[in-house]
Amino acid sequence: MSRIRFALAQLNPIVGDVTGNSLAIVAAVSNSYSRGARVIVTPEMSITGYPVDDLASSIDFIHRSEAGVNSLATRLASDGFGDAVVIVGYLSEAPHAEFGGARAQNSLAVLHDGRMVATYAKRHLPNYSVFDEERVFVPGAGTLVLDLGGVTTGFLICEDLWRSDGPVAELAAMDLDAVVIINASPFDTGKDETRFPLLATRAAEFGSTVVYVNSVGGQDDLVFDGDSSVLDASGSTLLRATRFQPTLELIDIHGTGASSKGIPLAEPTDNVVPFIGVDLPDLDAIWEALVLGVRDYVRKNGFASVALGLSGGIDSAVCAVIAADAIGANRVYGVSMPSKYSSEGSKDDARALAEAIGCHYDVQPIAELVTPFETQLGLTGIAAENIQARARAMILMALSNQHGHLVLSTGNKSEVAVGYSTIYGDSVGGFAPIKDVFKTLVWDLARWRNAAADSRGETAPIPVNSITKAPSAELRPDQTDQDSLPPYDVLDAILEQLVSHRRSIDVVVAAGFDRSTVERISGLIAGSEWKRRQGAIGPRISQMAFGRERRLPITAHHTPGLG
Amino acid sequence: MSRIRFALAQLNPIVGDVTGNSLAIVAAVSNSYSRGARVIVTPEMSITGYPVDDLASSIDFIHRSEAGVNSLATRLASDGFGDAVVIVGYLSEAPHAEFGGARAQNSLAVLHDGRMVATYAKRHLPNYSVFDEERVFVPGAGTLVLDLGGVTTGFLICEDLWRSDGPVAELAAMDLDAVVIINASPFDTGKDETRFPLLATRAAEFGSTVVYVNSVGGQDDLVFDGDSSVLDASGSTLLRATRFQPTLELIDIHGTGASSKGIPLAEPTDNVVPFIGVDLPDLDAIWEALVLGVRDYVRKNGFASVALGLSGGIDSAVCAVIAADAIGANRVYGVSMPSKYSSEGSKDDARALAEAIGCHYDVQPIAELVTPFETQLGLTGIAAENIQARARAMILMALSNQHGHLVLSTGNKSEVAVGYSTIYGDSVGGFAPIKDVFKTLVWDLARWRNAAADSRGETAPIPVNSITKAPSAELRPDQTDQDSLPPYDVLDAILEQLVSHRRSIDVVVAAGFDRSTVERISGLIAGSEWKRRQGAIGPRISQMAFGRERRLPITAHHTPGLG
Repeated sequence: MSRIRFALAQLNPIVGDVTGNSLAIVAAVSNSYSRGARVIVTPEMSITGYPVDDLASSIDFIHRSEAGVNSLATRLASDGFGDAVVIVGYLSEAPHAEFGGARAQNSLAVLHDGRMVATYAKRHLPNYSVFDEERVFVPGAGTLVLDLGGVTTGFLICEDLWRSDGPVAELAAMDLDAVVIINASPFDTGKDETRFPLLATRAAEFGSTVVYVNSVGGQDDLVFDGDSSVLDASGSTLLRATRFQPTLELIDIHGTGASSKGIPLAEPTDNVVPFIGVDLPDLDAIWEALVLGVRDYVRKNGFASVALGLSGGIDSAVCAVIAADAIGANRVYGVSMPSKYSSEGSKDDARALAEAIGCHYDVQPIAELVTPFETQLGLTGIAAENIQARARAMILMALSNQHGHLVLSTGNKSEVAVGYSTIYGDSVGGFAPIKDVFKTLVWDLARWRNAAADSRGETAPIPVNSITKAPSAELRPDQTDQDSLPPYDVLDAILEQLVSHRRSIDVVVAAGFDRSTVERISGLIAGSEWKRRQGAIGPRISQMAFGRERRLPITAHHTPGLG
Repeated sequence: MSRIRFALAQLNPIVGDVTGNSLAIVAAVSNSYSRGARVIVTPEMSITGYPVDDLASSIDFIHRSEAGVNSLATRLASDGFGDAVVIVGYLSEAPHAEFGGARAQNSLAVLHDGRMVATYAKRHLPNYSVFDEERVFVPGAGTLVLDLGGVTTGFLICEDLWRSDGPVAELAAMDLDAVVIINASPFDTGKDETRFPLLATRAAEFGSTVVYVNSVGGQDDLVFDGDSSVLDASGSTLLRATRFQPTLELIDIHGTGASSKGIPLAEPTDNVVPFIGVDLPDLDAIWEALVLGVRDYVRKNGFASVALGLSGGIDSAVCAVIAADAIGANRVYGVSMPSKYSSEGSKDDARALAEAIGCHYDVQPIAELVTPFETQLGLTGIAAENIQARARAMILMALSNQHGHLVLSTGNKSEVAVGYSTIYGDSVGGFAPIKDVFKTLVWDLARWRNAAADSRGETAPIPVNSITKAPSAELRPDQTDQDSLPPYDVLDAILEQLVSHRRSIDVVVAAGFDRSTVERISGLIAGSEWKRRQGAIGPRISQMAFGRERRLPITAHHTPGLG
């Protein structure tokens, strides 16, 4: 019988930054080693970041990854951690290239004594949803089982865990003390409710403790939520890391062998009480995901500040608060750009929001910018409406050019779905914080955020009027969104059916919706595919986000209701 | 011994338009049947169009495809063609769904006597380059061999042909008279030089005639070039269809059996001389691909007209001529939008181009539109430069909103690669005709097109001055592109290395390029990934087009030279 201290290093790597990612691993090893840990587990692709997409087709990048792992092993030994076992995820050169060009593997390396003592390559490659792994990776073969100081340990990488065939079945047939799974498993709302039952099921199948280590952080449109955990064979949670932030958690795992066996490891001399984090309600988790997505896009791409238009409406208000929560209000530049159609209430609400969160605030009226276009081109109707939205875009982009701000696009998922926006107008920006958030959920988040402020004794950031008033683009007199669209609760319910669940028009109608409305919405979705293709990326929080998850032709004589 | 007339129906389906695509098949059958054909072969996915992407995940769409094939079989019989064999490509429901959601097959149906008498599902699914077939299709199993009036015929679908294992090896082991391959194989420059040797190799392996039928037409970023052909076992070309247009070609294939055997078919009573089209030089083929790409995007998406800015430069001139060749100059609206920095020469060149091709022409100076922005916002430097490009975008989009034009974006591949454009400025538009054409190739095409006009006794459309003058964005006094970029011949050579061949910086430097230049270009490529993501689609003519073919993270601390 042995007792070995494992560390779960829930890291936030940056794609491509092999050096920086390696240094973060060294720091995690150093910290946990001094607290008795001798097996330190980092996430999938912890050396390279994830997903690397077609960077995996670069032999140069593969070699950089491999060299990075070797350097790390040397560095760990020279820093005095050579007697520990460190598990890293990296990109390795495949034994053969596949037809079409995949020549890398999504691999795990076991570092000990200054070198790579074992490796394992991911066998099940997800090629659905947001994943393209069959495009860029060659699947591995075989299983890896090591005796880590008496703890007989099997290894899996992410998708391997989700399928019952192959490595899961092979490990289940063995007599193991623990199974370590390294992951880069992106967040969606309710993901933890799928992940935990799966972990419990697998733990029972293996008859062993499962050690699940996930990445954390934003990477373009994906947000990794962490939620690294340890469950025992009965399915009880022994450890659960805080989600949405880098953490380092310790737990002692018991082995049936002696600690001097296999790779001999020192047993700890003290005890640790593993941390068990609380369940996050959905709204809390979504907010954290949006904040982390914005923070990491800003940070990893080197922006000092963000700018966004503040209309007085709910979307821009929520985006501003997300940005302030992500990077601090002093780095947020709100710009009110009223037109002759902007109500006094809207201008007041925009200013009130800026004052409540304490961000920078500027007012740039657009009347004198728009009139020359209207006059010179003789614009009317939708053309005249869109000129206003595009003048605002020019202001924001000019401020971005002048001051280096990242422009945030404030469109929500309902608008993005039906194309209720002006392309090259209110859609402009490098990142779109709420593009995967339906309008009704934007309201829920606003109320939730205000309540959270109240409960902490802080000022509620979002003006109540922005939440309660009828939404309007204010591009013509007395316009409201409901002139063009059904009420948002109806619209969002139909979008859930057509987009999220890919149901056909007939099925949606059978569920109780008005046929002409469903057909109109379906047509709007199809007709705005070209706009979505040119839209900014933003954090994915659903199981069907626009972008890499939903790939449809622009040219298609087919309604988008997908049954 | 039998002699059976085969028809190669090189069709141009529209994605999703099951009814329209079926009618085009009926027309091809009717036409060729009356000329003695009894085996009519249509392309891969001729019922649904290709690629359908995630439409293949829609059970509703799968059922629509299957119903379409059954209706077609009934219709063909009722129209009097029931005794012929018609080969169509369609989307079928897979026997089981795959983990992750693929539940369709990319299938071939043999229609005869009013029903589907045999089917075959594609076994090799390309999941590289522009293809995502493992995402949406379940691979088939087994081979299909039919006796078609004494012609023992095997069947393959596109990618099956390209790999030597699986169905190719299985058919090669049989004694066949013919192998029919149905395809939706997109164009790239030089594709025919790969395709024909492959066909010859396979014909030798099969020891039989190969009948290769490919789609034609533009579908979003892909252009299908047709090039349907028949080769005999010795590799000789017996038939080659005209590329880049729908055609129907006939050829008699000899069978070793009797025409009354298998599916009995009537032998023809006359003879046909199969058409053998000429080889197209690369510039001719590229021009045809660009024209077809634009024509089909306009046509299939229902636009009546296109609008584009005419700067007097080479890019907009070439785009205007492509558009005029595609849809007629009377549907092309050129807009000159001079600023205070526009030279008289540029204005003259823009007008001369419009007059030469006979398109609509309007002049909209931007000075009075730009000044209010500069004044109100106090803009200088790049911010002031970009305002000009964005004012032009506002004009074009306003004209689009007012009149329904599709706006063409005129940026070339060299600019797109290094981000030498103003996002929401000169990059705006729904379709970008030359986004996959490097600047040096734009010049080659311009000279080629003028020479082609000369050789037909027509007016050369592109002003010589637009070809010979130094390129300039004309956003500040005396600006030329070479203030910011290396000469285009050097830039394009480096881009070929870094982008097209995914070579690393070290390899490119070793090939003789200046390291600091290569590193700067590499950095520009990486830094403009976010712009490319928001760019319009345009016809792919290379083997490494920006877009679905090159998937890289925006957030990445790695230079884009891919070794």
